[in-house]
Amino acid sequence: MKAVVRRGQRLICDEIPDLTPGAGQVLVKTLACGICGSDLHALHHADKMAELGRRSGAGDFMDPSRDIVFGHEFCAEILDHGPGNAGTLKAGTRIVSVPMTFGATGLELIGYSNTLPGGFAQQMLLTEAMLLEVPNGLPSTHAALTEPLAVGLHAVNQAALDDAGCAVVIGCGPVGLAIIACLKARGFGPVIAADYSPIRRAVAEKLGADKVVNPAEETPYGRWSDFGIPTSLAEHGMAQMMGQVPKRAVIFECVGVPGLLQQVMEGAAPLSQIVVVGVCMESDKIEPALAINKQLDLRFVLGYSPIEFAQSLSLLAQGTVDATPFVTGTVDLAGTPGAFETLAKPEAHIKIIVQPN
Amino acid sequence: MKAVVRRGQRLICDEIPDLTPGAGQVLVKTLACGICGSDLHALHHADKMAELGRRSGAGDFMDPSRDIVFGHEFCAEILDHGPGNAGTLKAGTRIVSVPMTFGATGLELIGYSNTLPGGFAQQMLLTEAMLLEVPNGLPSTHAALTEPLAVGLHAVNQAALDDAGCAVVIGCGPVGLAIIACLKARGFGPVIAADYSPIRRAVAEKLGADKVVNPAEETPYGRWSDFGIPTSLAEHGMAQMMGQVPKRAVIFECVGVPGLLQQVMEGAAPLSQIVVVGVCMESDKIEPALAINKQLDLRFVLGYSPIEFAQSLSLLAQGTVDATPFVTGTVDLAGTPGAFETLAKPEAHIKIIVQPN
Repeated sequence: MKAVVRRGQRLICDEIPDLTPGAGQVLVKTLACGICGSDLHALHHADKMAELGRRSGAGDFMDPSRDIVFGHEFCAEILDHGPGNAGTLKAGTRIVSVPMTFGATGLELIGYSNTLPGGFAQQMLLTEAMLLEVPNGLPSTHAALTEPLAVGLHAVNQAALDDAGCAVVIGCGPVGLAIIACLKARGFGPVIAADYSPIRRAVAEKLGADKVVNPAEETPYGRWSDFGIPTSLAEHGMAQMMGQVPKRAVIFECVGVPGLLQQVMEGAAPLSQIVVVGVCMESDKIEPALAINKQLDLRFVLGYSPIEFAQSLSLLAQGTVDATPFVTGTVDLAGTPGAFETLAKPEAHIKIIVQPN
Repeated sequence: MKAVVRRGQRLICDEIPDLTPGAGQVLVKTLACGICGSDLHALHHADKMAELGRRSGAGDFMDPSRDIVFGHEFCAEILDHGPGNAGTLKAGTRIVSVPMTFGATGLELIGYSNTLPGGFAQQMLLTEAMLLEVPNGLPSTHAALTEPLAVGLHAVNQAALDDAGCAVVIGCGPVGLAIIACLKARGFGPVIAADYSPIRRAVAEKLGADKVVNPAEETPYGRWSDFGIPTSLAEHGMAQMMGQVPKRAVIFECVGVPGLLQQVMEGAAPLSQIVVVGVCMESDKIEPALAINKQLDLRFVLGYSPIEFAQSLSLLAQGTVDATPFVTGTVDLAGTPGAFETLAKPEAHIKIIVQPN
């Protein structure tokens, strides 16, 4: 079958061996698979990602010197079941899945594995027990957003929103936008969104952001007192002495470039929570004493639970979150290497979906 | 009256003007006042502290070019009340207080003010409404520990201990030791304490640390699985799928030197909470991607609430926390500049108490 293979630091459309489902596995036909920012990064920096994974307790999940087929944001159709499967979901059923497959060598991260191909291949092997049927006729290109939306949902679930006076989302790429959508889905507001890109700001607004800011023109951190958030420790202490629970800000950092964490810390109101979702792969400089003086909480988040993944699918299938503004392009396998280049420029696209068949 | 005055970057025993209590204020005689690590730092780096305070929303609390009398960990005796005071606590009563006084110019931070002297003076002006009587005949040198113990209590209260499998305290200076004491006071264990100094390790053990480690000989981060804490994300995910609430580690960073935060992040188990109490005044380097991959929570904490301050006094007065091992020396005002020099070497002392009268 055909696949887009990462070989060295290049993407090559190539033939790879066909797959046979083992016990507990399901052979699927890939219908749609989103290109993730992590894929863009892994194309050139898979060594660093693998090394970091080892140091983080994620184990040896990929060897960048060998072929990898990326793609972990997928919707697929069941073709065949492995021996002894329950077979509850029949061939022809459209499904999504947490991108993990139990294989002969243990757990494989689909999209970052040397053994099993990801969604930029015509077929994949998934684990039967992890499949979720796509309900309500949700289009496959939209169902493929289940994974990135789950990342946003997890970030929102990790935030302390109960005493939050507002949420600020720094960076409106797919993850920032997923966070905005999930904040609005749970009825939270006001949500302030910031991005330099006009197309991203427009989508943020479409997804329900209450205020959209171009950081070149206006600071996203200048309005704390409008939302009842104390701007000094003295003001915060006074509110507490009056028996009030002072409101605080929740800031989602969804950019992940060096210097941004410090910038957010400087802009944050005292006692803010900073949920760090943007993955800064380089070493970064911060002033810990500033974080201490402001009593900041830096919560670094990653991924999602299987339950959050299922909830994310429901949000899309029930129309609570409209996937339409996310999907700004589709390509076939031949067009995938070019789509990686296009996505390097944040002006042009939100999410490009690969349709391998 | 006599006081130890910070003038430029030197400490000088000098005469300063006598004080007269205004409305709501109380004139007190300082009985005992601890030397804090922040005082050591402020002697040479008050400029940086003041600048950071401004940027942190703490306002303009001191002008380092003018005289400052340090000392914010005090026990004192009431001498006289200002006009119109309730006067519930009579002259002669021994008290402690959150180091803040409402003055003609607003709120003054006692110990870091140009207007009102701190505890390294023979007398101070405090706010009547903030005084707490020292109960149970608690010695004044021990009551002076109310403030640093409250710092430890606040840090412990900010920690998510309910699902913690163990607590690791990195650095057994006064704050690290206060944290150990407060963890044991609330019945938490196991507590692992780490410090290069044998005297500090001995005090950590005396205060109830379950395991005391010399980091030169043994890593304090090597025992997660002994405490049921998953050491990989896969292990953590498996536990969740089995319906368990996986235990996590809480690590208190009580050193505050560049590089230590990254070291703690590297040693932490996935999903650890790192409570940052050590004040690193310099810019520091971290790898955000490591924190993301491990889903770490970095909670930066400072100070305490008035309620925590009162609880801290109770812990000492009821003997739940034994102050004895903390106090390793006492000096008079003349001996205070020398005590600052002695404390620069962590081998010699835990806490030196100044007795100005």
